[in-house]
Amino acid sequence: MAKIDVAILGATGAVGQRFIALLQDHPWFRVAEVAASVRSAGKTYGEACNWVLDGHPPPEVAALTIKPLDQPIAAPLVFSALPGQAAHEIEPRLAASGRVVCSNASTYRMAHDVPLLLPEVNADHIRLIDQQRNNRDWKSGALVTNSNCTSMPATMALAPLRQFEPTHVHMVSMQAISGAGYPGVAALDIVDNVIPYISGEEEKLIVEPAKMLGTLTEDASSIRALPLSASASCNRVPVLDAHLVSVAVRLAARPTMDQIQMAWETFQAPPNVRNLPSTPAKPVIYTSLPDRPQPRRDRYVGKGMSTVVGRLRPCAAIDGVQFVALAHNTIRGAAGGSILNAELLLQEGYLDGVQRADVG
Amino acid sequence: MAKIDVAILGATGAVGQRFIALLQDHPWFRVAEVAASVRSAGKTYGEACNWVLDGHPPPEVAALTIKPLDQPIAAPLVFSALPGQAAHEIEPRLAASGRVVCSNASTYRMAHDVPLLLPEVNADHIRLIDQQRNNRDWKSGALVTNSNCTSMPATMALAPLRQFEPTHVHMVSMQAISGAGYPGVAALDIVDNVIPYISGEEEKLIVEPAKMLGTLTEDASSIRALPLSASASCNRVPVLDAHLVSVAVRLAARPTMDQIQMAWETFQAPPNVRNLPSTPAKPVIYTSLPDRPQPRRDRYVGKGMSTVVGRLRPCAAIDGVQFVALAHNTIRGAAGGSILNAELLLQEGYLDGVQRADVG
Amino acid sequence: MAKIDVAILGATGAVGQRFIALLQDHPWFRVAEVAASVRSAGKTYGEACNWVLDGHPPPEVAALTIKPLDQPIAAPLVFSALPGQAAHEIEPRLAASGRVVCSNASTYRMAHDVPLLLPEVNADHIRLIDQQRNNRDWKSGALVTNSNCTSMPATMALAPLRQFEPTHVHMVSMQAISGAGYPGVAALDIVDNVIPYISGEEEKLIVEPAKMLGTLTEDASSIRALPLSASASCNRVPVLDAHLVSVAVRLAARPTMDQIQMAWETFQAPPNVRNLPSTPAKPVIYTSLPDRPQPRRDRYVGKGMSTVVGRLRPCAAIDGVQFVALAHNTIRGAAGGSILNAELLLQEGYLDGVQRADVG
Amino acid sequence: MAKIDVAILGATGAVGQRFIALLQDHPWFRVAEVAASVRSAGKTYGEACNWVLDGHPPPEVAALTIKPLDQPIAAPLVFSALPGQAAHEIEPRLAASGRVVCSNASTYRMAHDVPLLLPEVNADHIRLIDQQRNNRDWKSGALVTNSNCTSMPATMALAPLRQFEPTHVHMVSMQAISGAGYPGVAALDIVDNVIPYISGEEEKLIVEPAKMLGTLTEDASSIRALPLSASASCNRVPVLDAHLVSVAVRLAARPTMDQIQMAWETFQAPPNVRNLPSTPAKPVIYTSLPDRPQPRRDRYVGKGMSTVVGRLRPCAAIDGVQFVALAHNTIRGAAGGSILNAELLLQEGYLDGVQRADVG
Repeated sequence: MAKIDVAILGATGAVGQRFIALLQDHPWFRVAEVAASVRSAGKTYGEACNWVLDGHPPPEVAALTIKPLDQPIAAPLVFSALPGQAAHEIEPRLAASGRVVCSNASTYRMAHDVPLLLPEVNADHIRLIDQQRNNRDWKSGALVTNSNCTSMPATMALAPLRQFEPTHVHMVSMQAISGAGYPGVAALDIVDNVIPYISGEEEKLIVEPAKMLGTLTEDASSIRALPLSASASCNRVPVLDAHLVSVAVRLAARPTMDQIQMAWETFQAPPNVRNLPSTPAKPVIYTSLPDRPQPRRDRYVGKGMSTVVGRLRPCAAIDGVQFVALAHNTIRGAAGGSILNAELLLQEGYLDGVQRADVG
Repeated sequence: MAKIDVAILGATGAVGQRFIALLQDHPWFRVAEVAASVRSAGKTYGEACNWVLDGHPPPEVAALTIKPLDQPIAAPLVFSALPGQAAHEIEPRLAASGRVVCSNASTYRMAHDVPLLLPEVNADHIRLIDQQRNNRDWKSGALVTNSNCTSMPATMALAPLRQFEPTHVHMVSMQAISGAGYPGVAALDIVDNVIPYISGEEEKLIVEPAKMLGTLTEDASSIRALPLSASASCNRVPVLDAHLVSVAVRLAARPTMDQIQMAWETFQAPPNVRNLPSTPAKPVIYTSLPDRPQPRRDRYVGKGMSTVVGRLRPCAAIDGVQFVALAHNTIRGAAGGSILNAELLLQEGYLDGVQRADVG
Repeated sequence: MAKIDVAILGATGAVGQRFIALLQDHPWFRVAEVAASVRSAGKTYGEACNWVLDGHPPPEVAALTIKPLDQPIAAPLVFSALPGQAAHEIEPRLAASGRVVCSNASTYRMAHDVPLLLPEVNADHIRLIDQQRNNRDWKSGALVTNSNCTSMPATMALAPLRQFEPTHVHMVSMQAISGAGYPGVAALDIVDNVIPYISGEEEKLIVEPAKMLGTLTEDASSIRALPLSASASCNRVPVLDAHLVSVAVRLAARPTMDQIQMAWETFQAPPNVRNLPSTPAKPVIYTSLPDRPQPRRDRYVGKGMSTVVGRLRPCAAIDGVQFVALAHNTIRGAAGGSILNAELLLQEGYLDGVQRADVG
Repeated sequence: MAKIDVAILGATGAVGQRFIALLQDHPWFRVAEVAASVRSAGKTYGEACNWVLDGHPPPEVAALTIKPLDQPIAAPLVFSALPGQAAHEIEPRLAASGRVVCSNASTYRMAHDVPLLLPEVNADHIRLIDQQRNNRDWKSGALVTNSNCTSMPATMALAPLRQFEPTHVHMVSMQAISGAGYPGVAALDIVDNVIPYISGEEEKLIVEPAKMLGTLTEDASSIRALPLSASASCNRVPVLDAHLVSVAVRLAARPTMDQIQMAWETFQAPPNVRNLPSTPAKPVIYTSLPDRPQPRRDRYVGKGMSTVVGRLRPCAAIDGVQFVALAHNTIRGAAGGSILNAELLLQEGYLDGVQRADVG
């Protein structure tokens, strides 16, 4: 079967590169267009891109000519790795033109009719698209977002605990350098150092998990956020990839440690998500090793799509429990998460005129 | 005036080396004896020591012959950088023999008649020595401890807030490599990585601040710990020196941010501590820069003896405030803290027969 | 077909672990025995091993009980990751008992009847085994070595240039932390630092390439080393894996830059090596990018089995040319190189009673 | 005595900051003006500067308003930390206006009438200024340069060996991140990596040492470069400060190792240089420790103004000797070197109307 053409916006950046790396040999999608700022437009991808991952860009993508961001996109599916400001105008314009946009930008994550999708956790939020199309008078286009790369592991670890009624959550993150893009963090700032601040990050951690863990209203018109007193403290550490989050949470139902561990171990994606190409065998993996998860040693678990959780123990200060959670920030926390969202959209029939049957 | 002879136990280790570096040119003390395990005993310090700090050991110390740990110490004042197990037998034995032992070991920190001293915070706890001498039938000897290197900045930052009645405190640390001694952490474990666990550390963070922030009973016989629901999560990060602690605390008195900031800015050591040689001009320095304190850039503030605090803001999860605190772990958090304790002991007359007047 | 059982000596160390990781899913070999020092013997591999690579040891190896090193080995093929001293007695003993030993230890590399094998370069040196068996009265056993992990990329890069008559070579290495094993280099020694010395390393770089590039005498009784005035300067740098070597070489035939580049690009393994499971598609890859090869970005080229060469340019000081070469030190420079040697031995009939046909 | 006012050009950059840090408490000089690009001009230094060194900028400099680079400078002495292109027009203009410019830029280093000054090595080259003023019709102004930060330690280590007639020198550098300025090297490029290329660096290493080691012609009209077949290979390593250079050199006079070591140990600055404020007690320090010099542990030797040399041994490939040399790249190799040059200029009467007597 033919693969579906996709376009990457912001293709030369760190997340754009990760999209391209992950889409190499993807069973359903094929990178057909790359777009970036005027500085790069007109050059081939190979010329314009300072490839920061291992090895080199795939030759077939390296040969593509980069489009400027203000031009139309032909591909029915668009992955956006745009900075927030650029996303503001471009993403709705493309959705209005009939494209399904899966965005990693933060711009529209909290918009009332935009799903903030984490398929294992809230696949049903996808139905918000019907409301979105209605509101915005979009026919076949749509806009779906994935969360911030630190909200992501915290939310995935909390999802199996929803049954225990989380009410207060405090998150302290140790985030990788690649989360800041390229060139991003200067080596002079981070070697032998920690930077206890990441602009705009803590605000996202306070609101995004509550939306992702929320419930779709019965009329599928909006998300009712989980009531959660959340706070966050974000730190940049000298690690290349993967964000580690130390989570303290109060659970009104007061489960035992065993019940919590069991909840993680038995957690599964809903049936319609389970067999998508990028869904990991286990969304959450609990490790009982005393000194894990570690960013370098656990970031590629489940091909970088699983969340590894460990060190569960009581937390007197929050009157609950604490644990650490880890996910690969540019795979599951960004490009890989967005690709999984697109797989779900395709399967559920949200890519108008492009059916799962065509590709599977 | 002649300086007082001091002995360093565990002199070849990472903290032992820091004692030696800090005592170079100390106005009151002079390193006269060095003791270490049998592996090193009999060699000169220069031969036996793999100096891990910058440059080289001071020539006058490099020429000293290392004593075995089971021999008597001649110096009236002893700094112990021993591992916990070795400290168990050796420290009380030396105190019993009339030596004043200032220990960095954790072994006796929580003993009821042993001060856990942080002079700017609890200089009066020193009076517990009278009880200690009585209990143990020690004449001129004494045993005083300084806290764990992570308890230290957390406690120093909390001390000015005692007036606001702290009740719950959650600490997430990002700790430097040097805290594990030498060889300590293998490079293969920590380069491009975080280790979310440090054996025995969290237990110390839960109990030590409460003792240090506690009050001496009226009869000076024991410490009444501050009632504090404390929890901790300790992480090793790829930083050479200085521990950063992200602190969330509930304050029953509900002060404003301004009141807290003011409490830090006006915090002073008690008068009898203020002019000791190692007391920093400001024990706590509040920075309003958004991305500070940082380990590499702030660890030498106050010659490594100050605690730098920043990022004060509300914390919804704990229903209080959060901030970050930083101190140099092998200076203020270990050797430097112990030296300051010894200065206080000397000044307050606890070095029998050696008066402040002799050295000042 | 059944796979051949292999034993790993020194299985818990950094190179031992790499053997186990690389042999997972190997088409011909299967890890059946693991042996290590008395400290580990008797435990299961999973219990005894502090796994320093990503993820976790393969479950089927984790379940094996570790043998002590003084016991017989049942497997016909033995991979040795022993330290030099242990190898001294153990390796010949096992060869005498009929085992084919592929060793990463330096102990016997320069012995006159022991091949120092780099299959793409000197596959014919394997014939020295006949002499070896004769000399030592070994029947089916044999001892074959692979080179030091820094000699390896230098030699691979020089091999295609043998036609241009190299006479003088100066090598300055920047070597990864993993080359020192585990725990190996202390983080306190290498973070924000370079150590311009690696014990015993420069001596190996001076003699090993000349042997590997040498020719088997007509009677196959010894190796005539290439006459080469070699010198080396070895440095440890804060890199996890892959050794970079800056090479300056005088070539008596004075080829042009194009001729040298062409020699690399057309270099191939001999036909009997080309299709072994671990032989890379291209043993040497020349990159014309100005700032490559880089350890982190090029270490997995050819699954870590290729050598990447770049930055070819004249060198006035040596009156020749200079370039940089890079290989993965624990894959091609150690375990992977040893496995490729074993594949060649098997194919060429040196595993008595175990024919290639049985496994291929 | 009043201090002399100095201006810093390019004051907000990494080298500009180092100038400001080193001039704090300088006995002769006082930072009175700071100039930078239009982006910063008009702001106070404290506002405009992202201080990358430890701590914070000195308050008296933080309060200065940054001038644009196209305006006149009032101070008689100017330190330039400008990028090469900006230096091209600005430096001669300021010299023509009567300012003595001590430049760290590479632009005019190789100009025939511009001294490339390393006072311990070639203090007499300063007399080239008379020719320069004549050529360019400058009255009291002058332009003096210091070398590239990697040429510097190589040249300082070679200077005591001039008597042994060096003819061929090969240099392989391992250079610190701070050499690239700020933001400079992206953390994503250098963590767990080496970059075997630094644009324009090798060219400088080939020509600068020969000029610095050269002799002033009898009529003081030009420098006769030392005839030297030089080649270089430059690498960026994950080190914050200090450049390490592995040097191989052929010495026609064939001295013994002892003679070379003696030459380093007895090397002194000329008498008129020996007592300048920034001259280190020993310009070259030879260490016999097997694993030194190391960047992190030796960069502050002589307050960062000494060059540490070690690991002297024969080098078969170059038919000579090899050793490693280390200097702090932003102190001795940049700002500190330039300040020492200015001290020499002042003492030797090249700051017209400002005599040494006024300040000493």
